[in-house]
Amino acid sequence: MTLILPTRSEPLTVDAALRDRAAKVIPGGMYGHMKVSSATMPPSYPQYYARGAGSHLWDVDGNEYIDFMCGFGPQILGYANAEVDAAASAQQALGEAFTGPTAQIVELAELMTETVAHADWAMFAKNGTDATAMSVVIARAATGRSKLLKASAAYHGANPWFTPGGAGVTPEDRANIVEFTYNDLASLEAAAATVDGDVAAIIVPPFKHDAFADQELATQEFASGVRALADRIGAALILDEVRTGLRLDQAGAWESFGVRPDLTAFSKAIANGYALAAVTGTGALAEAASSVYVTGSFWYSGASMAASRRTITLLQEIDGIGIMETHGTALREGLAAQATSYGFELFQTGPVQMPIIRFADDAELKTAFAFTDATVRRGVLLHPWHNMFLSAAHTSADIEAALVATDEAFAEIKRLGL
Amino acid sequence: MTLILPTRSEPLTVDAALRDRAAKVIPGGMYGHMKVSSATMPPSYPQYYARGAGSHLWDVDGNEYIDFMCGFGPQILGYANAEVDAAASAQQALGEAFTGPTAQIVELAELMTETVAHADWAMFAKNGTDATAMSVVIARAATGRSKLLKASAAYHGANPWFTPGGAGVTPEDRANIVEFTYNDLASLEAAAATVDGDVAAIIVPPFKHDAFADQELATQEFASGVRALADRIGAALILDEVRTGLRLDQAGAWESFGVRPDLTAFSKAIANGYALAAVTGTGALAEAASSVYVTGSFWYSGASMAASRRTITLLQEIDGIGIMETHGTALREGLAAQATSYGFELFQTGPVQMPIIRFADDAELKTAFAFTDATVRRGVLLHPWHNMFLSAAHTSADIEAALVATDEAFAEIKRLGL
Repeated sequence: MTLILPTRSEPLTVDAALRDRAAKVIPGGMYGHMKVSSATMPPSYPQYYARGAGSHLWDVDGNEYIDFMCGFGPQILGYANAEVDAAASAQQALGEAFTGPTAQIVELAELMTETVAHADWAMFAKNGTDATAMSVVIARAATGRSKLLKASAAYHGANPWFTPGGAGVTPEDRANIVEFTYNDLASLEAAAATVDGDVAAIIVPPFKHDAFADQELATQEFASGVRALADRIGAALILDEVRTGLRLDQAGAWESFGVRPDLTAFSKAIANGYALAAVTGTGALAEAASSVYVTGSFWYSGASMAASRRTITLLQEIDGIGIMETHGTALREGLAAQATSYGFELFQTGPVQMPIIRFADDAELKTAFAFTDATVRRGVLLHPWHNMFLSAAHTSADIEAALVATDEAFAEIKRLGL
Repeated sequence: MTLILPTRSEPLTVDAALRDRAAKVIPGGMYGHMKVSSATMPPSYPQYYARGAGSHLWDVDGNEYIDFMCGFGPQILGYANAEVDAAASAQQALGEAFTGPTAQIVELAELMTETVAHADWAMFAKNGTDATAMSVVIARAATGRSKLLKASAAYHGANPWFTPGGAGVTPEDRANIVEFTYNDLASLEAAAATVDGDVAAIIVPPFKHDAFADQELATQEFASGVRALADRIGAALILDEVRTGLRLDQAGAWESFGVRPDLTAFSKAIANGYALAAVTGTGALAEAASSVYVTGSFWYSGASMAASRRTITLLQEIDGIGIMETHGTALREGLAAQATSYGFELFQTGPVQMPIIRFADDAELKTAFAFTDATVRRGVLLHPWHNMFLSAAHTSADIEAALVATDEAFAEIKRLGL
């Protein structure tokens, strides 16, 4: 593993040419969470990538990076994992998108009910948004109620119910949402009281992983309190593990609290990059789950399910979460020591395998942008305002090399007087 | 090509064993449009499939079928098309779900703006529902209005806005939908008048392809009238080509009418079975499209886009639509002659490449179930109440063989006194 600093091409000419072409045929040049613009990301960030292998990515200009975004989560065993790809390819070779499902759907549902503690059943879809929306619809079908309690600023998907954007969203899309403050039981109780008797579900992420903010782990009191309230008012507790699934605890993110949800939404990492989402639920909700009409043309395809089965078992076999914790801890400790030595106050929050960074007195993200810009030019993809993701493919050598780059980046922003 | 009648295993023991296992871990044993149950499908229908190649499918018990469902649409070049799979695999081998898109998204957007007549831009997602919902949100963002006019009973996806099911759906989910009757301009005008000044969009399929009903091609008057009304009231015209895309006219289903939509929703066949959806739009809507927040973890993955590019160009090269029309016409004419000779009144409607069948005086579908049950046992997958799909992989030999099976099936239901 060598850093690619010496060979980083400047400017990124292939990338720039693709951006020019995209500007003509894609609204705004790109859309969604992968849009790189001067407003949202440091100038050195590439927009387009050509290849990935393990924890490394190559942009379209041939520059190599250690990637701490992992595709915003999906890569948990690394890009192009040979075992996962072999499982998917073997199924793919048999054909895809049949007139009915394959045995893979049964095998995967069985595996998920074995590995996810609360799960008596599983259903599958394609987007994380499918899984969160499906969970809400199932809770409404089960309770005959409408209201959904969610933490303010928490992201649960990109449909009009949930999207952080306002364009094209009607008041009716949000009419059944009531917000509370994460880790604040009193605010949750107050939110529930405003719609007493009509709460279908409480949806929460396992920890507060809002963008542009320090992450906040759930407290035992909050997790237990959410569960107790849901039970008391007869609402379903939906744990949104789209972002956290397989990274915190394969049995469920709140297992260490002894708290189990009624429904869990999964996506992102569950098939190591293949498009898949899942909802798992308790037996009490099985009838409601079978009563809702949810479907999609590609929801029964076998290759992503074969990929998911191997992803789940391989992570177990290698203790993938342990690996991510080890390397995440080394990265966090290394960054902390460097920040201190260069005189920066750096806040690192969230689980070590899903870290976010924030500099003190940096409301406009000037320091964060300069720092991550400097690491990206040194072959290390860090994010200035979104939580990052480690994978089990990251190695000690990756962390060491990344810390060389971050040390230089701290020195650079120090020189800039930031 | 030989029919597999002599080797059809009865009962389907592997299929039955999978159903038993699924009943324990999947709500209701299966969900969505691929659920096979005694209530919805004839008893001989398999639930699980093992392999597909071209126009043929094999169930998990090893029985071979000529498949006229094509996975409910996605298969337009046939299962496991070598050229499409090669394009997808080459991209897949480079890794998937990167931290940004690949050049494939630009290439595909360019190809779609070249091949789809109204398209100045394209955006991509995973589900047909993503595409229809995104179109509506873009129209709302562009107009600042809320209401959506849709044809009653028309299917536009499975989210709470659109789903034909009612479980888990709130009144607010449907509050902005106003219905009209397909091919009835007066009813459309009346629907628009009830929400005068607040119509964001009119969404229509290119033809009326409701399940459980005769299909109805759009009239020139209706298509032109929808376009004129949308222009007059400043609403966007959304053509829902999720089901029809690439099967009727690669330039747009209403090109023969000289009618172009503002937005088109695509999915199903556009990547020959790989999970992909697209919205194309006019330049006037590009700014609105760039203002909405829509995204998904797998929306930028390159393999399905590589598959789509080859699907689109290969269909052009071989005149795929012409092939489907030829074989669809032969199937329709053959079935019509057989029905007459056996004394059945059989209604065959819809484009020949997307046919639906209905027997006269068969409101309870007793005859349709018996007929398709008999064809399935003879290795021909027909559907008793949903439109079917031909692909460019269907051959003259397929049609001949299918007509041998359907002739025997007519004879069988005649003997049953239906």
